[in-house]
Amino acid sequence: MDVTDSVPPDQIAALQHRLAEFAAARDWEQFHTPKNLAAALTVEAGELLEIFQWLTPELSLTVMEDAESAERVEDEIADVLAYLLQLCTVLGVDPLAALAAKIDRNEERFPVR
Amino acid sequence: MDVTDSVPPDQIAALQHRLAEFAAARDWEQFHTPKNLAAALTVEAGELLEIFQWLTPELSLTVMEDAESAERVEDEIADVLAYLLQLCTVLGVDPLAALAAKIDRNEERFPVR
Amino acid sequence: MDVTDSVPPDQIAALQHRLAEFAAARDWEQFHTPKNLAAALTVEAGELLEIFQWLTPELSLTVMEDAESAERVEDEIADVLAYLLQLCTVLGVDPLAALAAKIDRNEERFPVR
Amino acid sequence: MDVTDSVPPDQIAALQHRLAEFAAARDWEQFHTPKNLAAALTVEAGELLEIFQWLTPELSLTVMEDAESAERVEDEIADVLAYLLQLCTVLGVDPLAALAAKIDRNEERFPVR
Repeated sequence: MDVTDSVPPDQIAALQHRLAEFAAARDWEQFHTPKNLAAALTVEAGELLEIFQWLTPELSLTVMEDAESAERVEDEIADVLAYLLQLCTVLGVDPLAALAAKIDRNEERFPVR
Repeated sequence: MDVTDSVPPDQIAALQHRLAEFAAARDWEQFHTPKNLAAALTVEAGELLEIFQWLTPELSLTVMEDAESAERVEDEIADVLAYLLQLCTVLGVDPLAALAAKIDRNEERFPVR
Repeated sequence: MDVTDSVPPDQIAALQHRLAEFAAARDWEQFHTPKNLAAALTVEAGELLEIFQWLTPELSLTVMEDAESAERVEDEIADVLAYLLQLCTVLGVDPLAALAAKIDRNEERFPVR
Repeated sequence: MDVTDSVPPDQIAALQHRLAEFAAARDWEQFHTPKNLAAALTVEAGELLEIFQWLTPELSLTVMEDAESAERVEDEIADVLAYLLQLCTVLGVDPLAALAAKIDRNEERFPVR
């Protein structure tokens, strides 16, 4: 089965669908409790931070200039997003709606002076 | 100015646009180095994990049943996504393309038996 | 019972003893699986990092000059150490021996030029 | 120079001394701002959590039974403690006093019923 044949038009939903198919095909759903996914998300965020941990602020702006470093950054960003989306799937949370609502609240909370 | 008037059709790009406007209006761009955003992402992932840290796997499945707990979960998911998208903006990374490429690689790396 | 009456001479063992008494008296041992303690340790490390996340390297050197900020730093350091020691108790790991052995290995791995 | 010849009697202070000598000999002190050390601490806590992330609570209790897994646990515990102690050195915080004070406060905050 080609998953791309049947994906919904929404890009995020399509990725969540692919991630769910991927886990189901490997019988990994049993590991994907919200708790485990939140732990894995934190672990991957740490791996992303590791790339930057000894860099000056200025050097941290140049990580995409080196091909190997750029690939590592994209890889860790993908991992963070993967676990975030899988967590949203398991919990029934719409991540884009949650973020839009949060920005609305922050616009109230931090008024522009 | 109503940001929603001018947002691109792509939902992710629209949120990145709103986040950039929000930071610019408060002069917070100076703090948004890739290093700081990666640190903030990790901190927020930790706050999300905190909700689950003492729960059994089974109880972790029920966090959305309680309104207060559900709100906290959505709030932390929004924070994680916000910093992830801001990091992608600063670095010029397309998060959905990065994730799609990663799933492609994982399908090679972990063949279904 | 005054725990300080019976603490071993070793300072670390004494703190591990106090932490164990504290958890036992509140029936919290059931939550202190290695997995949960490792999660809590990561969450607290994130709370410590939060203090520094938007600071320049230079400003991060001054956090102890402000009384409130200093108190927060000491509080989070205490939390990290508490969960690290409780994890070591549960797993039977001697943290000081583990660190001494690691420094030995690193001296081999990173020879001084 | 054999560092063990000159270490103070206090075990923690002795390890802090070794870590400081180690960093100084490699000219790594420049990287050891409080901010960077707090980031590195969080990264290492994440690596420790990674060992447990997919385990059931029960399986997490058995990680020391396998030699390879036990070694990995001890290695990550050592890394967490190393960065915690280096952070304490740079900030002038006494980690054991901070923890003792925190336990005192928690005994007030969470009275035994």
